[in-house]
Amino acid sequence: MTPHPAPGPADLVITGCTALVHDAEERVGFVEDATVVVRDGVIESVTAGGDAPPAPGNRDAPDTPDTRDTPHAPDTPDAVEHLDGRGLVALPGLVNCHTHSPMVALRGLAEDVPIDTWFNELIWPVESNLTERDVTLGARLACAELIRGGVTCFADHYFAMDAVADVVAESGMRALLGQAFFSSQGPEGRAASLDFALRRRGDAGGRVTTCLAPHAPYTVDDADLAATARLAREHGLPVHLHAAEDRAQTEQSLARHGLTPIEVLARAGLLDGDGDGDGNGESGTGTGTGTGTSTDTGIDLLIAHGTGILERDLPVLTRAAGRVAVASAPRTYLRFGWDPTPVRALARIGVPVGLATDGAASNNSLDVWESMALTALTQKHAERDPTWLTSRQALHHATLQSARAVGLGGHIGSLAAGRRADIILVDLTGPHTRPVHDLAATLVHSARSADVRTTIVDGRILMRDGELLTVDVPETARELEERLPALVERGHGRRIQQYES
Amino acid sequence: MTPHPAPGPADLVITGCTALVHDAEERVGFVEDATVVVRDGVIESVTAGGDAPPAPGNRDAPDTPDTRDTPHAPDTPDAVEHLDGRGLVALPGLVNCHTHSPMVALRGLAEDVPIDTWFNELIWPVESNLTERDVTLGARLACAELIRGGVTCFADHYFAMDAVADVVAESGMRALLGQAFFSSQGPEGRAASLDFALRRRGDAGGRVTTCLAPHAPYTVDDADLAATARLAREHGLPVHLHAAEDRAQTEQSLARHGLTPIEVLARAGLLDGDGDGDGNGESGTGTGTGTGTSTDTGIDLLIAHGTGILERDLPVLTRAAGRVAVASAPRTYLRFGWDPTPVRALARIGVPVGLATDGAASNNSLDVWESMALTALTQKHAERDPTWLTSRQALHHATLQSARAVGLGGHIGSLAAGRRADIILVDLTGPHTRPVHDLAATLVHSARSADVRTTIVDGRILMRDGELLTVDVPETARELEERLPALVERGHGRRIQQYES
Repeated sequence: MTPHPAPGPADLVITGCTALVHDAEERVGFVEDATVVVRDGVIESVTAGGDAPPAPGNRDAPDTPDTRDTPHAPDTPDAVEHLDGRGLVALPGLVNCHTHSPMVALRGLAEDVPIDTWFNELIWPVESNLTERDVTLGARLACAELIRGGVTCFADHYFAMDAVADVVAESGMRALLGQAFFSSQGPEGRAASLDFALRRRGDAGGRVTTCLAPHAPYTVDDADLAATARLAREHGLPVHLHAAEDRAQTEQSLARHGLTPIEVLARAGLLDGDGDGDGNGESGTGTGTGTGTSTDTGIDLLIAHGTGILERDLPVLTRAAGRVAVASAPRTYLRFGWDPTPVRALARIGVPVGLATDGAASNNSLDVWESMALTALTQKHAERDPTWLTSRQALHHATLQSARAVGLGGHIGSLAAGRRADIILVDLTGPHTRPVHDLAATLVHSARSADVRTTIVDGRILMRDGELLTVDVPETARELEERLPALVERGHGRRIQQYES
Repeated sequence: MTPHPAPGPADLVITGCTALVHDAEERVGFVEDATVVVRDGVIESVTAGGDAPPAPGNRDAPDTPDTRDTPHAPDTPDAVEHLDGRGLVALPGLVNCHTHSPMVALRGLAEDVPIDTWFNELIWPVESNLTERDVTLGARLACAELIRGGVTCFADHYFAMDAVADVVAESGMRALLGQAFFSSQGPEGRAASLDFALRRRGDAGGRVTTCLAPHAPYTVDDADLAATARLAREHGLPVHLHAAEDRAQTEQSLARHGLTPIEVLARAGLLDGDGDGDGNGESGTGTGTGTGTSTDTGIDLLIAHGTGILERDLPVLTRAAGRVAVASAPRTYLRFGWDPTPVRALARIGVPVGLATDGAASNNSLDVWESMALTALTQKHAERDPTWLTSRQALHHATLQSARAVGLGGHIGSLAAGRRADIILVDLTGPHTRPVHDLAATLVHSARSADVRTTIVDGRILMRDGELLTVDVPETARELEERLPALVERGHGRRIQQYES
């Protein structure tokens, strides 16, 4: 066999960290003193300290001269960039499975009000003022917050999404993007959503994936939902929408249609499958080859919230298992006085539940780390069962289940050879994370988003030791804040839509 | 009138910050571009930028030569130490109204288990191994975490409290300390609690106040509770205990005694008052003179948790209004699947509810900032009312109500002339706290404990721009972690107490 040409140094090597990994049964575990090697945006290997692979130059030619005579420590594989991970835990980058990133511009605008006031009196009137520049600046500030909090991928559902796609490209993030539409916009809304999804999928070297994004079954009519399902199948696009946001919506749907929101989606064909659902279309644009898990393909339907999912919805969802996921944003539900997403019931039928924050106008932050902790806490509370939703389960939601929810189950969500190199390094040396009796518990319940020191997407370092490298926060915030008076003006009496649930 | 001698420069001046203040009706407001002047551990003035007081040397002699010719900006009062507060918000230091600080040593030890297993199989067996050195190290690590999170005062309820008092003295914190006891210890437990309270009150220049600390009505019998009430009145000491921790305890108490835990406390005389309740005894040792509010005196009884308080308890508590407070630790209640403290009912009858974390073995952190946010969120959820517990209400709990709960209602909890100078400076320039539409909402729901930059107690800086000045975290954690194997050993089968609720 002819040796391959020596591939040269790796792009990035992290040494001496503790690495969160999954075993063959997807149980969360930890490798001490781990070495993570990254090449071409992909994780090449994750090994325990003593088992570091030979320097990459040696891989296919074990008898060539030792090339490890480098400035690195003796066991460090040769690499362009070396990160010292001692005292740090490496995790797969977090995923925010449902947000409206530009809404950081409205953070704190609509406080202490019920959902109908929130929509009709505050958010939807203000959004009628929204410009593409507002969206650009909001998305940029959001990306800064996400990167700082260890989030490497987000599912965004908003307007003027070309602006968001551009920000994703420039910031180095990964994202599943959908241009939102209401039936009140007429056929143009749906057409624009499709146009965006087809034009931008695979952008930014494959970091942008796209979807169709009807707003919700209470704002998009049956004909539009059915047309969306057909377009999704035709073009191999997933669909991301709000549904069964709370119990009142479900009851309203039952009163109006005799069907729950989930049943409305099923009737429209949105749970029928057939799309490949990875958001990349048939010609998938280089998000890696996956690791051969059974969930390598993406989902077809991402449902935001689902706190109003009823027992009767479970058979419908069971038939779509593997093709449907739910994004859960527990802080929003506390705020509005809703019960949380029925995670235990969804786990029983194999529907992944990804972590989310919703937009910053209902959550006040894009802190997925907090969503992870609050998912554990609110699930224990809702089930009245302190033994349910353990820290390791929470980490499974934060990693593989969130990756699946955004259609990238085979590509991200795990530190394993072949996965995209979306990695965060977390500092556990602070007084609030000492001592460690149970590392999973320390990560979920003691660590905070502020403990993330370094954030890497596709092998590129977006934050190094707390310093953001791709977003200028002061300049972005300055320009955004200058624009706020025009943005929040509501004297005109317009709103983009009316909320009636 | 003879002019006073010029008092010389102030000890500390903070300029250019936004200061959280309370008006005469205790409504939370903000002073922009504020100057805070501190002298002898007390806040001398809080003024808006343009209204900075004259340099202190000039105060009583307006016609003496201008002494402001100093290295400071022209409007900056002369001071030994000057902090530039631009971009920062000054708040009263947070108060942790119920914790067991040394239990940080057990952080993450007892996860995902119900309360009886938590006590009987994990915490109480391990606590039978506890040494004074463990308590010292745990309390020291806890103080580091508290200071980093903007907490300037904590109510601690544990064993070996002389060790905690020493740590409070060395770390510069303020604390209300009580030596815990069970009736199972015999009369020595109660005697040691009294001995500690009398010996250590007023320590550390008045920063240590003390109380009697029976564990709970389910572990301390009626005779001991009644004796505690008599001792409290005789010595002018407050009492801090656990009661009605959850609904199951209340039901157990009703089944056993025909009385709720609150009624058991009332029968024992613990709600009768008469003590001065400020924990300093009659000769109060210099915690300032208060600001003339009606709540200047301290409470007599601090009840931890109270999530099992029933409607029938409210008349009992109403009769003790002004003398009783409740400490609420919302994260612990989510974790154990309990409903939260009935804050709305307690607000209606004028019982202050202070913020708390409980120990780090049930909360996993001592993050009072998180308790503030979770109090708002879990109260909205429990009441199914998004308009209840607004951000300004949450800030009122975090400031004046928490100060009252620990018996220091006239001394801390507000940035006002005459109050002790317990001040924190919070950085809101991060991407997660921009833009600001509503500063109260930004503080409660977007800011995090990690945004605290500077922590000041009694005018002394304990953390400056993120650097801890009074605790050596690496050395403390190192020694504590060496001791963990001996601490967590449970093979002996001992436990300090049996939990039966």
